[in-house]
Amino acid sequence: MSAARALLARSAPLWQRLTAHPFVVEAGDGTLPAGAFERWLVQDYAFVVGFRRFLAGLVGQAPDARAADVLAAGMGPLQAELELFRREAGTRRVDLDAEPLPTALGYTSYLQASLADGYQTAITVLYGAEKAYYDAWVAVRATARKSSLYWPFIDNWSSDAFAGWVAAVARLLDASAPAGPTPGMCVAFDRVVRLELRFWDAVYSGERW
Amino acid sequence: MSAARALLARSAPLWQRLTAHPFVVEAGDGTLPAGAFERWLVQDYAFVVGFRRFLAGLVGQAPDARAADVLAAGMGPLQAELELFRREAGTRRVDLDAEPLPTALGYTSYLQASLADGYQTAITVLYGAEKAYYDAWVAVRATARKSSLYWPFIDNWSSDAFAGWVAAVARLLDASAPAGPTPGMCVAFDRVVRLELRFWDAVYSGERW
Amino acid sequence: MSAARALLARSAPLWQRLTAHPFVVEAGDGTLPAGAFERWLVQDYAFVVGFRRFLAGLVGQAPDARAADVLAAGMGPLQAELELFRREAGTRRVDLDAEPLPTALGYTSYLQASLADGYQTAITVLYGAEKAYYDAWVAVRATARKSSLYWPFIDNWSSDAFAGWVAAVARLLDASAPAGPTPGMCVAFDRVVRLELRFWDAVYSGERW
Amino acid sequence: MSAARALLARSAPLWQRLTAHPFVVEAGDGTLPAGAFERWLVQDYAFVVGFRRFLAGLVGQAPDARAADVLAAGMGPLQAELELFRREAGTRRVDLDAEPLPTALGYTSYLQASLADGYQTAITVLYGAEKAYYDAWVAVRATARKSSLYWPFIDNWSSDAFAGWVAAVARLLDASAPAGPTPGMCVAFDRVVRLELRFWDAVYSGERW
Repeated sequence: MSAARALLARSAPLWQRLTAHPFVVEAGDGTLPAGAFERWLVQDYAFVVGFRRFLAGLVGQAPDARAADVLAAGMGPLQAELELFRREAGTRRVDLDAEPLPTALGYTSYLQASLADGYQTAITVLYGAEKAYYDAWVAVRATARKSSLYWPFIDNWSSDAFAGWVAAVARLLDASAPAGPTPGMCVAFDRVVRLELRFWDAVYSGERW
Repeated sequence: MSAARALLARSAPLWQRLTAHPFVVEAGDGTLPAGAFERWLVQDYAFVVGFRRFLAGLVGQAPDARAADVLAAGMGPLQAELELFRREAGTRRVDLDAEPLPTALGYTSYLQASLADGYQTAITVLYGAEKAYYDAWVAVRATARKSSLYWPFIDNWSSDAFAGWVAAVARLLDASAPAGPTPGMCVAFDRVVRLELRFWDAVYSGERW
Repeated sequence: MSAARALLARSAPLWQRLTAHPFVVEAGDGTLPAGAFERWLVQDYAFVVGFRRFLAGLVGQAPDARAADVLAAGMGPLQAELELFRREAGTRRVDLDAEPLPTALGYTSYLQASLADGYQTAITVLYGAEKAYYDAWVAVRATARKSSLYWPFIDNWSSDAFAGWVAAVARLLDASAPAGPTPGMCVAFDRVVRLELRFWDAVYSGERW
Repeated sequence: MSAARALLARSAPLWQRLTAHPFVVEAGDGTLPAGAFERWLVQDYAFVVGFRRFLAGLVGQAPDARAADVLAAGMGPLQAELELFRREAGTRRVDLDAEPLPTALGYTSYLQASLADGYQTAITVLYGAEKAYYDAWVAVRATARKSSLYWPFIDNWSSDAFAGWVAAVARLLDASAPAGPTPGMCVAFDRVVRLELRFWDAVYSGERW
């Protein structure tokens, strides 16, 4: 079993909580209140801005030029995402430069801090974060209402293009750990899923400093 | 007014909460339960391990060799702190390698992530974290019981040697911002104090993942 | 005068040596021997691979999301360049993974090491390296032979698209130094031009370890 | 055979050139002209300043707290070295802030750039640089004249304390590569020795920009 598959298998109980999270379910069926959408816009924009720093750091750590090619190819779609956030925020007069809340700040900071643990851990963190997004949004794609405020985002993160990139990241992860995931990779992978769940809790419930 | 003084003056309301926090008060007068002490040993050890990475990053960003001298001089005392944690943990059979809780992980990660904001922000973050420690523990030093489990730590962080280093860091901060703190520095400084308060909340109340 | 213009004005004597360098002149008029072209393929590929790490590092240091947008937009064209190198090398059976020579290694390493000097210096280094490329190749574009081995590269680095990106980098540089270049920026800018000239010397003359 | 021993065995021919280099031989027997000593003071000071950034980066990349302890313990002796350079330069009115020459700049930059290759490569680079210093100066220690301008430096880098630290770094290297050195480690190790030799060539012969 490849390292990516082994990590997913180990984390199955945690993983099932992603697609069952009320934030994801209600975003899909369009019942999530507009206030939550606007909270999410601000927090997730801050997340993507920090995530780009993390991804750039990984480009710099890639073990060879071909691996760097794959990682750098994630930069273009990220730009399109940021512009989608800015358009939505502009329409709704939401201030994207508001200070992120503790949970979003902690999650985003952890991505960046994981670079100090080296490429093998950091590529695991990248895969966890991207695979969680893909799996959550693909789970609601079929039944999601196109009129949902989240539709453009659901559409983006459940697209074939995104699926292809996540699969390419899984191959980099597998190549970095031919003997399977190390204990450090397992800790990092579970941590990302738990941080993702906490991020959605915070947006859903309206965390404050 | 120097940048360091201006930051402290702006943050006075937040700052007063540091010395009044029940974790600090009860650690000083010896009424904090042993369970909280043991929770704190694990979380603060993880913090110091991550803090050393942050400080090492700052040594690498120092604008000149003399500034790097000051920052690198913080490495020796940090080693002594880590050994104090290990001795206490060994005596009490506490596992220092347990996974940090979300608040400690988020705070520590933020320190490391702040390096990407550049030296001016990162030296502000360093000053905030160290000055908060110094002020909190010096506030209880005079009345602290030498038999408190925290005494060796209180003694360390309220020492003249630590005071001298914190003052040297303040001078680096002042030199980096001769026209006073920028808006980004103000955000970073307040953020550190709030993350410190949340760290003590988490240890005091027994946070879980 | 903007910081970018001031840097160029100060360095005019050095700058004039770029377009007069025999490597550039002979690459343009097609008289450079094929051996030099093949040496250059290997050394410049290694340079671009390291340059991508440097650019990724700068994306991570950008002072705000809009500046990061500009820098990250350089990643796509870089991928196209790398693929052009790989195609040419494949045709000629040149091994792009050969170890870089000392001058290329030193120049590329300096780009990466300059990140520790902070964003203001590193954006200066980026501008110097890109502007040198643009100015050198635009100088020979009009008279270059389309049959020159270098033509696809000359065409790339003298294109309007590349010109537009270099101008956007100049605006980031100007924004980082509204009062004009600091002494540290002047040192870094001249250093890049001198390292570029030495790189061409090494390729032209066939440096060895 | 441990990874460190295997690297040394593979590089034996290069390694023998270190102790036979005229810079080392003449520094030891006191026949090196004062001009070379002064050139060396400036270049090696710049090297040590950059080396400290590199070592700080490695502290940040250490795989666990015990490895970070070992690496961070190198910071104190480095401070003593920097002060020795400053005293010697002060006595001789040599300007330590003069711009480093290309070879010193390239070598120092390479150390810092190697951090992007990850801990396993970077610890190899550290070991190569420190072991080269130790072996070169210990080779001349027995016959060196105490009146040589280099004596305080020879004494420092051939001391038992330095030997102990180099041995501790070798153990970190061994632990990072239990199956022996990877091809990337071999390239990095040889590269450091060659860069060290080129550094001495440049100082000995009086390189210019």
